[in-house]
Amino acid sequence: MSKRFDQLKPYLDKAHAYNLALTMISWDNSTIAPPQAIELTSKAVGLLSGEHYHTLINEDVKNLLEALSDPQEQASLTFSEKGIVKNLTKEFRLLAAIPPEEFQAYQTLLAKAYPVWEKAKAENDYASYAPVLEQIIHFRKKFAAYQQKEGQKLYDVLLDEFEEGFTVEILDPFFAKLREALVPLVQQIREKEDFISDDFLHQSFEIPVQKEFCHFLAEYIGFDFNRGIMGESEHPFTTELHNHDVRITNHYSENSLDGAIFSVIHEGGHALYEMGIDDEITGTPIGHGTSMGMHESQSRLYENNIGRSPEFWEPLYGKLQEAFPAQLASVTFDQFCRAINHAKPSLIRTEADELTYPFHVMIRYEIEKLIIEGSVDTASLPALWNQKYQEYLGVLPPTDTEGILQDMHWAGGDFGYFPSYVLGSAIAAQIFHHLETVMPVKQYLKEGNMTPIREYLNAQVHRFGGAKNTQEILQDMTGESFNPDYYISYLTRKYSDLYQLS
Amino acid sequence: MSKRFDQLKPYLDKAHAYNLALTMISWDNSTIAPPQAIELTSKAVGLLSGEHYHTLINEDVKNLLEALSDPQEQASLTFSEKGIVKNLTKEFRLLAAIPPEEFQAYQTLLAKAYPVWEKAKAENDYASYAPVLEQIIHFRKKFAAYQQKEGQKLYDVLLDEFEEGFTVEILDPFFAKLREALVPLVQQIREKEDFISDDFLHQSFEIPVQKEFCHFLAEYIGFDFNRGIMGESEHPFTTELHNHDVRITNHYSENSLDGAIFSVIHEGGHALYEMGIDDEITGTPIGHGTSMGMHESQSRLYENNIGRSPEFWEPLYGKLQEAFPAQLASVTFDQFCRAINHAKPSLIRTEADELTYPFHVMIRYEIEKLIIEGSVDTASLPALWNQKYQEYLGVLPPTDTEGILQDMHWAGGDFGYFPSYVLGSAIAAQIFHHLETVMPVKQYLKEGNMTPIREYLNAQVHRFGGAKNTQEILQDMTGESFNPDYYISYLTRKYSDLYQLS
Repeated sequence: MSKRFDQLKPYLDKAHAYNLALTMISWDNSTIAPPQAIELTSKAVGLLSGEHYHTLINEDVKNLLEALSDPQEQASLTFSEKGIVKNLTKEFRLLAAIPPEEFQAYQTLLAKAYPVWEKAKAENDYASYAPVLEQIIHFRKKFAAYQQKEGQKLYDVLLDEFEEGFTVEILDPFFAKLREALVPLVQQIREKEDFISDDFLHQSFEIPVQKEFCHFLAEYIGFDFNRGIMGESEHPFTTELHNHDVRITNHYSENSLDGAIFSVIHEGGHALYEMGIDDEITGTPIGHGTSMGMHESQSRLYENNIGRSPEFWEPLYGKLQEAFPAQLASVTFDQFCRAINHAKPSLIRTEADELTYPFHVMIRYEIEKLIIEGSVDTASLPALWNQKYQEYLGVLPPTDTEGILQDMHWAGGDFGYFPSYVLGSAIAAQIFHHLETVMPVKQYLKEGNMTPIREYLNAQVHRFGGAKNTQEILQDMTGESFNPDYYISYLTRKYSDLYQLS
Repeated sequence: MSKRFDQLKPYLDKAHAYNLALTMISWDNSTIAPPQAIELTSKAVGLLSGEHYHTLINEDVKNLLEALSDPQEQASLTFSEKGIVKNLTKEFRLLAAIPPEEFQAYQTLLAKAYPVWEKAKAENDYASYAPVLEQIIHFRKKFAAYQQKEGQKLYDVLLDEFEEGFTVEILDPFFAKLREALVPLVQQIREKEDFISDDFLHQSFEIPVQKEFCHFLAEYIGFDFNRGIMGESEHPFTTELHNHDVRITNHYSENSLDGAIFSVIHEGGHALYEMGIDDEITGTPIGHGTSMGMHESQSRLYENNIGRSPEFWEPLYGKLQEAFPAQLASVTFDQFCRAINHAKPSLIRTEADELTYPFHVMIRYEIEKLIIEGSVDTASLPALWNQKYQEYLGVLPPTDTEGILQDMHWAGGDFGYFPSYVLGSAIAAQIFHHLETVMPVKQYLKEGNMTPIREYLNAQVHRFGGAKNTQEILQDMTGESFNPDYYISYLTRKYSDLYQLS
């Protein structure tokens, strides 16, 4: 046991307390806070963020981290402690690069930005949001420049924050490969546009019944309501105070059944990751999913590889029909399974099908690179957005609400985050392929037995939190590092079969 | 403008930020947090409370407050600033008397105590709650002893925290006077027990419809949902982050209509006070209701003097009948108005009628005096409780759930709080009497015009927050200091008329 490490603990505990308070306020703002609260609340958020910052970024912590980098000290640390020191050293370097007043001003800005975006989206009023977005971009670029290492691309600074080691040099060819495989596939499917109908998923579905079914689904995949809650927000998300308080939200539309259903499975996958973190490390700097990509792999594994499979729905479809008899009684199991995998270029990322989804990310990735590395004007972003949708997907957003205003990420300062979604899908495909080699996954799904899958993921992925990175987790679990080929062959096989392509 | 006062501001702002975070976490715990979250969350609460404490209790603030007590400095302060300094000086004296570690341990204890009480109440298991209650009492007595002035009674220290200047010496005769007037009145009414029936209020009332009607009622009396929200908890309460985020909760029972209805009017009255605080002082130490008694006067004025009057229900009863046609179609307006004022000795304080309510408080007052000044054993409290209910009200709680476990107050450390409820009723009667001299109150109620009443209370009571104390507010508004006679004559006249007593 390291005495130096023990000296670090009070700082970690205090940092977690601030984090918990800020997470709670942020959750509350996004779910239930009254509309006019934000102005005054965001002042408090600014002050608390300032305190949080100073708890970790100070001379004492700096000296402790330096001392703990000594090989003898390292040798005395446990596996988890080593992870904490490594993570904190990185975080220290990134945070210490930013002047405290600027960091605090940025946090205050973010607290105000969310409702501005929400209102702009509701009212299709990009102009009212653009000045706030401009300020956020200004801060993000400035901060990235502070953190930039010699020779490092500015956008790579942001990517590294969400997925260590992933760079434009890796992502550009990754997306190129995807494009090469998927463009012809999507083209073939467009030619068979009416081959699969999902019209019956867009009847009127009573929202209270949707809520009840989504609650059931969350529990079904293993979400523990003794250690988590489900709320509502404009855009579904997952957040956690610690591994005993994990929160997901959903968003319900009367005229769409699959929206809420696959959102709850998606967020549920995120939540299982956070609920599965070891008690030993919860509330520490490594007490959460190791990266955004790995996090998305868990949500997408549940949403797509598992949640859109016929085997998953075999024990469930009857129950869904019972919940919505008027709407689904005459829809066969086969029709349902095909409909939930229906592929068609569309406008809204979160409602996109599994096949065209990567294009939504590709578009954001390309725009983000321009925003961060280039000098694109905020005012011209909607046009750029629309042009790319036209180009890649052949669809043109009729309003900014259905275009550039659809995502909350940029309003939260999350640039460099979007690529993680597709990395997540690729990792999910790799993990699902591996799962099938170690257990009868499809048989379990047919039996409604979700436990072995969750327990395996818990043992191999969840419990480590940030003590292992993505590559280490994949290597230890599958014997292979990240390999996107599983993703491409999965999509190709699945959609060729589904649309009976030659 | 005082430069010294400006130096105080950063401390006030930071204290408010901590307060906001702690209030938010507490609200969340009482309304939506998952059952198993509390253990880990309470650690963070303990740490944040410690930080909050040190923000105000330190040498800098001490020196600033001393400097600001100088007459020349005082002369340079605005009215609000003077109030802040006075309030903070008192709070400083009270808090500084408590060793920081003990204060923090106490906060951690309180965060854990709430769910323990909640579970004990649900399971009628006083024994599981007694050890926690014992610890809370231990802390409260110890803290009161730290704060005690020479010659001051220990219980007076606690009373003073909620209602400045009110002591056992004032309250003992106050309760004696009430007893003298009300005991014969209650006796006469018991003899006419069947004169008024409220059976129809205890049919089955659909909870979603109750919720909708309560939401409407809150809005009707002036609760602004742009600056507040309504949640659910075991016991209804009001809390606020600032004057733009005021939160009330309600509790719904299927077999009781008046419970939820009068709770929402009651908490709504509290909320109007907090929403009415001046922007200038919100978030400062005087940015909330001046005392518990004055706070209760607002909730009880709305709940009883206004909310139980026929005039209030004249424009509303039809709407209530529409909400519950099966249950209320055959109930006349007169029957309804009599039923909601029905008086009958009962077990649950929050469900007690206006007339027997003071006895519930009297019992708690007498037990609290014994707990704090005497040496009563925690184990013997349920028996003592039951004995007093038998003695004063002639009813015996069949379970502790309906007895000593019914209130959350002691689990929150609030000893000395209960008397404020009856003081509040007395102040409400005095204010209502005054209102009738300055405006046609009953006419406004008949017209469904709640605005003039709210605006008058806002101008005379709400906006000042803690810048005026109870006596100052009453004196400035009514030309008279606190006078309990209005309360006694109000109850006597109202119930003599209602029960047609000779």
